[in-house]
Amino acid sequence: MSSYQLLKGKKGIIFGALNEKSIAWKVAQKVVENGAEIVLTNAPVALRMGEIQQLGKELNAPLIEADATSIEDLNNLFSEAQKHFGGQIDFVLHSIGMSPNVRKGRTYDNLDYNFLQKTLDVSAISFHKMLQVAKKQDAIAQGGSVLALSYIAAQRSFYGYNDMADAKSLLESISRNFGVVYGQEKGVRINTISQSPTMTTAGSGVGGFNLFYDFAEKMSPLGNADADDCANFCVVMFSDLTRKVTMQNIFHDGGFSTTGMSVAAMEQYQKSLN
Amino acid sequence: MSSYQLLKGKKGIIFGALNEKSIAWKVAQKVVENGAEIVLTNAPVALRMGEIQQLGKELNAPLIEADATSIEDLNNLFSEAQKHFGGQIDFVLHSIGMSPNVRKGRTYDNLDYNFLQKTLDVSAISFHKMLQVAKKQDAIAQGGSVLALSYIAAQRSFYGYNDMADAKSLLESISRNFGVVYGQEKGVRINTISQSPTMTTAGSGVGGFNLFYDFAEKMSPLGNADADDCANFCVVMFSDLTRKVTMQNIFHDGGFSTTGMSVAAMEQYQKSLN
Amino acid sequence: MSSYQLLKGKKGIIFGALNEKSIAWKVAQKVVENGAEIVLTNAPVALRMGEIQQLGKELNAPLIEADATSIEDLNNLFSEAQKHFGGQIDFVLHSIGMSPNVRKGRTYDNLDYNFLQKTLDVSAISFHKMLQVAKKQDAIAQGGSVLALSYIAAQRSFYGYNDMADAKSLLESISRNFGVVYGQEKGVRINTISQSPTMTTAGSGVGGFNLFYDFAEKMSPLGNADADDCANFCVVMFSDLTRKVTMQNIFHDGGFSTTGMSVAAMEQYQKSLN
Amino acid sequence: MSSYQLLKGKKGIIFGALNEKSIAWKVAQKVVENGAEIVLTNAPVALRMGEIQQLGKELNAPLIEADATSIEDLNNLFSEAQKHFGGQIDFVLHSIGMSPNVRKGRTYDNLDYNFLQKTLDVSAISFHKMLQVAKKQDAIAQGGSVLALSYIAAQRSFYGYNDMADAKSLLESISRNFGVVYGQEKGVRINTISQSPTMTTAGSGVGGFNLFYDFAEKMSPLGNADADDCANFCVVMFSDLTRKVTMQNIFHDGGFSTTGMSVAAMEQYQKSLN
Repeated sequence: MSSYQLLKGKKGIIFGALNEKSIAWKVAQKVVENGAEIVLTNAPVALRMGEIQQLGKELNAPLIEADATSIEDLNNLFSEAQKHFGGQIDFVLHSIGMSPNVRKGRTYDNLDYNFLQKTLDVSAISFHKMLQVAKKQDAIAQGGSVLALSYIAAQRSFYGYNDMADAKSLLESISRNFGVVYGQEKGVRINTISQSPTMTTAGSGVGGFNLFYDFAEKMSPLGNADADDCANFCVVMFSDLTRKVTMQNIFHDGGFSTTGMSVAAMEQYQKSLN
Repeated sequence: MSSYQLLKGKKGIIFGALNEKSIAWKVAQKVVENGAEIVLTNAPVALRMGEIQQLGKELNAPLIEADATSIEDLNNLFSEAQKHFGGQIDFVLHSIGMSPNVRKGRTYDNLDYNFLQKTLDVSAISFHKMLQVAKKQDAIAQGGSVLALSYIAAQRSFYGYNDMADAKSLLESISRNFGVVYGQEKGVRINTISQSPTMTTAGSGVGGFNLFYDFAEKMSPLGNADADDCANFCVVMFSDLTRKVTMQNIFHDGGFSTTGMSVAAMEQYQKSLN
Repeated sequence: MSSYQLLKGKKGIIFGALNEKSIAWKVAQKVVENGAEIVLTNAPVALRMGEIQQLGKELNAPLIEADATSIEDLNNLFSEAQKHFGGQIDFVLHSIGMSPNVRKGRTYDNLDYNFLQKTLDVSAISFHKMLQVAKKQDAIAQGGSVLALSYIAAQRSFYGYNDMADAKSLLESISRNFGVVYGQEKGVRINTISQSPTMTTAGSGVGGFNLFYDFAEKMSPLGNADADDCANFCVVMFSDLTRKVTMQNIFHDGGFSTTGMSVAAMEQYQKSLN
Repeated sequence: MSSYQLLKGKKGIIFGALNEKSIAWKVAQKVVENGAEIVLTNAPVALRMGEIQQLGKELNAPLIEADATSIEDLNNLFSEAQKHFGGQIDFVLHSIGMSPNVRKGRTYDNLDYNFLQKTLDVSAISFHKMLQVAKKQDAIAQGGSVLALSYIAAQRSFYGYNDMADAKSLLESISRNFGVVYGQEKGVRINTISQSPTMTTAGSGVGGFNLFYDFAEKMSPLGNADADDCANFCVVMFSDLTRKVTMQNIFHDGGFSTTGMSVAAMEQYQKSLN
């Protein structure tokens, strides 16, 4: 797909690119392809892995390390980014999620509550922190667009998704509630994209991922949306063509969310009963 | 379950009892068990089948025939019912649905539009007609409760459910829109119950019903709700204990609607892949 | 806003442009500005009004008259359009709505049922007819995108919107149910856009429109979305950048749908109590 | 309203009764009136206020103090309650909410993050803790019913509700996700009731409460549901008549949630413009 220069002259911050399977990685590439300049950011440990250094070079984008749960780091990030750009920021992507409960194999009826707090802080509250810091610095320009990546587990319970489901519900709530304030006062819009299960390093960490991926593929009339598709949709949501869309959670999922049962999934399921 | 006399002194009309598998049949029994008096009604062809005659005797309930799409019949029904009771009606159940497109095996991309009109008229617009006739006659008492049975195909597409899905969407919309008017002016509340797939004569008519029934059973943490469960829930919704619930579509489905993937369905599905 | 050539080489059909206040009118202009070729269509009576003739000239677009409720007319339209383009169609806009009950001032508890049937046929079933005709002709290309304009009255009851609310619920249901079939078999996606109240000829026909428009403006953190905004969003939804979005109803409303109460609306409301 | 003995022989725990305006207070009275035995619980500071001592005497219910955020306290509560009852528990009400950010007058774009953590812990995570402790002790009987009180701010942003909105979203998410596990394994169902704004000590603490209460009253076709209504609905949800309803958030609000604009609110609003 050729570039449309949809984001010409715009400046953005991309949180959460880890490696080339990351959605944030693809978003970074697509927004630059569409004329934007960006700053890449991630937690110190992620930056040290090196792959993102390479992405920074490829896209001519500075890397500014920031623990997204640290107000101090976020303050530094937004002021450094504005210094770098010589002005306000037009768009921000939040693509951050992590659950120590999932990592440690704790089931949902055996959560560690310190871990839960960590899950919520990293995966959802970090979004509020980022928005609050940005607004206090008046870092985002009028008409700016902020996105966070979510998942349908915020609406329905998915086996294995565990406390990440709660984090996504909280994330979407923050998007709505901050969306009112930032929208009214500064014309900034905030949305979440509820993406298909995606073959990323984070996605694959969830239990039974491959099995569920197959089910979702068969349930979705257009099949699962992949990271490239998602990146294209993010470009659109950052552009001026969507400037009145705010406080929405948009399903980007090949139709999964509104399909109760498809022929393909039913036929597959039927085989299991024979 | 013993009777709680939840509907003592209340008078109601039950549309749609056909045979002992019908949800409306069970509702008729349960409401009478809970102290209500009722009138049974159905289309002339259904009444001639005879089984409902027996239900009428069992429950000491008169049968008044009415084509639910005929204003004249509905006018007659509501005035006769009020004569019979010597006053206004407290509750009404709409349990009516039929699609000639489904019956004739026409797929959703090959609908006959006269059939579609019939599907909508019988399954959804009949609900508006019944409410409009009742309101014009001032037939429903202050605090009265009206229910229609719906299905989750109103929100998500289910293979085989065909144009009945559109009828259920329309039915739920009518419930909301008439709910405002009847609520404000007369304190009458209107809700829909979105019921699990149920082993009724109507339910079984939908393509692939047994297969889907099994899937829903495994997806629902409490299993599918059956006709008895639904009848109990209707009793509750007709009672004064729910007098502030209106314009809602309540899922009565063992948790199906908010379960994205369960362990049981996943394990079954996995077998199909081996 | 400059053109991004997002629809370069694409061919589309636009239903429902009436005059320069119409959303469809703006969409026609924006899609052509973005590189698309189009055919304009409307009912014979609308075409005779003349303004659309002028739009056709401006955009170098043929006008093909079609009553959207007539299978014959739709068949002719899709085959003529394909002849004109020399191939399949990539996108379709359905922007059609009309209620004789609203026009004749009948309230929702005093509907004329022939009028209701007309409301549903013109405003919702026409969408099914158009899709069924198109699919039978295999008129829409793989990856094609179909949009219909909707309104939040499909989810919540709005005073004065009357049976158009039911039509919009039905319209959105058709979008989901046809979306599965067309998506699976031909990779065509179908969505509805739930637009802010808009100052169009149709919009202004709804009772108390100006008052409600003011309320919505104050409730929406970004204010109401106008016809131009909507047209931009349609361009995006027709483009390849959104190719995995299907069977969704996306709110394009400045945040109205997820705002329960805003400061601005509250302050205005408070004045009324003093 | 006379008692129906709907909960005869059932045993329950009621969290959150503070004074006679509390919803939990009314629920305690209604469930006992309907034949249940209960244990009352609240935080130590609430118990010392004395009013609840009087409720305990009135209902012949022991008071067991528990900080709902303390696993130790919850463990003690569930084991003491079971000792008291001589067996498992049938129902639990969670009616707990508190935001230090609201209390201290911090706006949503100026949250204190320690306060936010406290808001979430007290108002939402306490629900998970209670469920996890109960399940580990196998304290809730097969068919048991657990309820938490929520508010529509979980779906839409309400001015002044602040981070309590995020807490309610998280609470509803926990209800769904724990509902799957507890439902499948033990047949226990978990729901939230989304209640009208209510004149309680907690409710009145929210900024602009009276103004919003008036707006909601006029928007709701049946008017706001009060604490008594809510208590009746809780009785129903604890009873065996609703045994297949799980993982739902049910709006108990006089129709507010599905009313976009009512005549009454519109007429009031119009006055403000004159």
